Amino acid sequence: MNLIERIEALRGTMAQKQIDAYIITGTDPHLSEYIPDYWKTREWISGFSGSYGRVVITSNQAALWTDSRYFLQAEEQLKGSEMIMMKDRQPDTISFDNWIIGQLRKGAITAVDGLTISAREFQSLQQKLDANGITLVQSDDLLYPIWKDRTAIPDAVAYSHEMKYAAISREEKFELIRSKLHQLGASATIITLLDDIAWSFNLRGCDIQYNPFVTAYGYISLSQAILFVDMVKIPNSLKDILVKENIILKQYGEFQSFLSQIKDQNILIDFDRTTINIYNQLSDSNQLIDEVSIPTKLKSVKSKEQIMGMKKAHIRDGAAMVNFLHWFGQNFGKMVMTEMTVVDKLFEFRSQQQLFAGISFHPIVGFGAHGAIVHYSVSKASDIAVEKDGILLIDSGGHYLDGTTDITRTISTGNVTLQQKRDFTIVLKGMIGLANAVFPEDTKGYSLDSFARKSLWDNGINYGHGTGHGIGHFLSVHEGPMSIRQEYNPEPILEGQILSNEPAMYRTGQYGIRTENVILCEKRMSTEYGNFLGFETITLCPVDQKLVLPELLSAEERIWLNNYHQQVVNELSPLLDEPVKKWLSMQWVPLPIV
Amino acid sequence: MNLIERIEALRGTMAQKQIDAYIITGTDPHLSEYIPDYWKTREWISGFSGSYGRVVITSNQAALWTDSRYFLQAEEQLKGSEMIMMKDRQPDTISFDNWIIGQLRKGAITAVDGLTISAREFQSLQQKLDANGITLVQSDDLLYPIWKDRTAIPDAVAYSHEMKYAAISREEKFELIRSKLHQLGASATIITLLDDIAWSFNLRGCDIQYNPFVTAYGYISLSQAILFVDMVKIPNSLKDILVKENIILKQYGEFQSFLSQIKDQNILIDFDRTTINIYNQLSDSNQLIDEVSIPTKLKSVKSKEQIMGMKKAHIRDGAAMVNFLHWFGQNFGKMVMTEMTVVDKLFEFRSQQQLFAGISFHPIVGFGAHGAIVHYSVSKASDIAVEKDGILLIDSGGHYLDGTTDITRTISTGNVTLQQKRDFTIVLKGMIGLANAVFPEDTKGYSLDSFARKSLWDNGINYGHGTGHGIGHFLSVHEGPMSIRQEYNPEPILEGQILSNEPAMYRTGQYGIRTENVILCEKRMSTEYGNFLGFETITLCPVDQKLVLPELLSAEERIWLNNYHQQVVNELSPLLDEPVKKWLSMQWVPLPIV
Repeated sequence: MNLIERIEALRGTMAQKQIDAYIITGTDPHLSEYIPDYWKTREWISGFSGSYGRVVITSNQAALWTDSRYFLQAEEQLKGSEMIMMKDRQPDTISFDNWIIGQLRKGAITAVDGLTISAREFQSLQQKLDANGITLVQSDDLLYPIWKDRTAIPDAVAYSHEMKYAAISREEKFELIRSKLHQLGASATIITLLDDIAWSFNLRGCDIQYNPFVTAYGYISLSQAILFVDMVKIPNSLKDILVKENIILKQYGEFQSFLSQIKDQNILIDFDRTTINIYNQLSDSNQLIDEVSIPTKLKSVKSKEQIMGMKKAHIRDGAAMVNFLHWFGQNFGKMVMTEMTVVDKLFEFRSQQQLFAGISFHPIVGFGAHGAIVHYSVSKASDIAVEKDGILLIDSGGHYLDGTTDITRTISTGNVTLQQKRDFTIVLKGMIGLANAVFPEDTKGYSLDSFARKSLWDNGINYGHGTGHGIGHFLSVHEGPMSIRQEYNPEPILEGQILSNEPAMYRTGQYGIRTENVILCEKRMSTEYGNFLGFETITLCPVDQKLVLPELLSAEERIWLNNYHQQVVNELSPLLDEPVKKWLSMQWVPLPIV
Repeated sequence: MNLIERIEALRGTMAQKQIDAYIITGTDPHLSEYIPDYWKTREWISGFSGSYGRVVITSNQAALWTDSRYFLQAEEQLKGSEMIMMKDRQPDTISFDNWIIGQLRKGAITAVDGLTISAREFQSLQQKLDANGITLVQSDDLLYPIWKDRTAIPDAVAYSHEMKYAAISREEKFELIRSKLHQLGASATIITLLDDIAWSFNLRGCDIQYNPFVTAYGYISLSQAILFVDMVKIPNSLKDILVKENIILKQYGEFQSFLSQIKDQNILIDFDRTTINIYNQLSDSNQLIDEVSIPTKLKSVKSKEQIMGMKKAHIRDGAAMVNFLHWFGQNFGKMVMTEMTVVDKLFEFRSQQQLFAGISFHPIVGFGAHGAIVHYSVSKASDIAVEKDGILLIDSGGHYLDGTTDITRTISTGNVTLQQKRDFTIVLKGMIGLANAVFPEDTKGYSLDSFARKSLWDNGINYGHGTGHGIGHFLSVHEGPMSIRQEYNPEPILEGQILSNEPAMYRTGQYGIRTENVILCEKRMSTEYGNFLGFETITLCPVDQKLVLPELLSAEERIWLNNYHQQVVNELSPLLDEPVKKWLSMQWVPLPIV
């Protein structure tokens, strides 16, 4: 089936069921960002493979909304489909709910698979459509009957995340969750996010590419802990461990009937992170308490041991990066090199490191104009040669048993222009601006985001994505609940949280520049005005000094850079071979402090 | 009646009506910040005269919540009452809704005068209390029967705001409002904010101290404009003008019955800026559209002529301030000077300026420890002498027919300590940080607030209030909908808006420092990344160079200050007498640019 036939087949099903518009969110029943192939509905219907989008199909229209990270990519991938791209969150673009209202007559019916939309989004969309005479209903997955060659739901084997890495036992975690339940007046909570499951039950698996997760649901009450998981994933040795710790194991398929039996309880569910399907099954017979998922909040604040693990993982990952940069420097110009060569070599160097457990996402390796495609996903089809005198953007990361990493470096491949240096230095100033931020407790990420953008804004530049996302501890490379971005997020930045710091700039059709380090939030000082926090940068890898214009840097920024590179050399050298060590020590000539 | 007797009398009324808790918001039926004496219910019951607070009275408890601006003042003023002060928005303080829940049994009744609370606040409070088994009802004003010597509702005469100052006619304003109504699918809107009334109808009055407002309601539909106002306030000449422009005049008291007759319309009301009383009267028979009040949004963006007026008003106000500072310098030490002397002299110098129409708020003149009381309101009772070798904080402003001003200067009265200089310079850096900000269109105030705090946060200092509020054009000195503060506010900062820029720091028991200028948002540049905005500072008055530590200032900050003082001299000199002109030119020795 080609893209046009798929949409036509879906319209056939919609007509049978008298559905006038069908929304495809493209996520799974756990509202995951990275999803097993089985649930890649948005990609199947549209051809668009980005991580964010909403598709709406009506009897004669088909449209995809995605954000500025993906404008170029989506335009490319939608070719050959009738589907049109809508630039989400741009002033001139109609939002997808208003578009539905404009397309449909009063009395029309819009449907969405209730397993693929949060309770909050469903309810607010329902309210909006309802006010305009359109009904929103929860339907089955309408692709089910027409998508014939669909990949099976994954059944990879799960394993216990050992205490020497996890640092906090299942029992301790259940106690933390129960104490929060008690405090919030709840008797139980449903855990649906896969990283929340992995954290709460100290389980890891490989159901999903780049994410060490096990597809499962959790139920934790003041007295019980139940894990709903396909038993085929649980080897007997693991089963023994879990049962011994009083965890009740049930089949993944039993979750729905279990929900329908819960009555007269105060159930905490996170309306933003739980499907409308679960909400609907519980809401009639129980009181629902809407709070941020307890494991989401708890796991964002890393323990001392977890921080230690994250730092060690970043040293190993930095060594892998430096090995790669050294190899690149030695071999560039001597062999044919493409973006895919870089992807493969990065994997090779990471896999040489101890405790390596896979890469944390598909690397973004974009040469020249490809670097300006924010979340460019290099493939055999898009691969191009890395050429002389250009700019190469490399965003990659690894999972290690003791931590997860995410790093972006932008490097030159020969001579660069003054504008490229200027752009690179402006982005670098933004990155240092956030790294040096000091702020009172209870500050939200939106208050810090501008520090990373100041140097860009001063020069009439901006980037259309956030500056910082939380990073898991051998979990998802994107983790909530906090963030550093312009958009409102009420969750404050807390001591012990680990985030990315990745200002950027993109010149469409020319090149992209991003410098990303991972930062740890820590206490800075206590004064009569309260406690103040700051960041420690834990990513260790040099930036390309050939792209730096020192005259644009303040004394404070020069000091930061000089100190940073000294630290990189000190901490990475013990892991490097002699020639690489020597090469690394020459990567940064200290800038004079005026 | 003393404070204790008042609370007891209220409890008597509550008992009769079987009300278990009574909330006093302390505002008027227009949700005004500054209110006629008649509606000063919060002050009457508690003795606390600040502009923000919530009082709750139960059968055996009485408590006032106020924010950090007023902690010291409230503590002082609550003496002699059983009422306890609660520090609002502090992590350790119970919020007033949770306090009510804790105090009352299930089934209890809480009441609030429906004319003194917004629809939004009432509804969210009702939902919260309801979830805990407590009923919230809209009641009459329970103070009515017990507050015997209550001042009458004001009946001051209104006047037309002349076109040469207003710049936009009533007809044009109604057309702007109607075009917005049309766009939002509404057939009419209710205008309740008094500054919205004054702006929409080009009316001014003197019902409220420091605010040139007329107590009135407005109703503007696609075809009608009705003004509900006590006819005693409208002289015949004004009546003729309004009637000629097809404005229907009705008595203020007719508003309630008018509301009850509106049926089957799409009425736009701003749930945040309209009382629950109005909401309740309209909601059954009409469709309500919840949007930010149209005049609130429209009037925040000043026209070219209005901006011109505001700039001229700030030049006159700056001349008055410089005349005052000169007088202070000449006379300090030669006569007894108290905080009240400063208040009186400021009034005298302002009133000498053309188009002066009153001061825009009661000046905050705080010497030494009084300066650390954020919204210290000097009175005969609190007045103290201004002494040698101290810090004097002066926050004041004026109304002129062509604009409103708001300025704070902190000056030394002799020798100052290094810490005082350091503190002053850190605050100054914050003020310049915001003044120099460049940012993309659609940026919210919360993204800019951190620029004003950076230098303070870096030094472990913070202040417990916002950095910037909108300023009216011969209207309220505090105007919405935008703001520059840490708290979330979805309204972006727009070209043509005028705001304050007032970072500060307070050392309790010692001194307070605040430097406040008024800034105009204007276009800075257009690039491939969109339009970028910035600020022009329109307040013109020197800062006290004796308090500046130049070594803490960057080259950029020195340049800003040198240029600023040159502009102050250039623009104010034509309005000053020779000796003052000479004095002014010596107030700033240009700092060397390293």
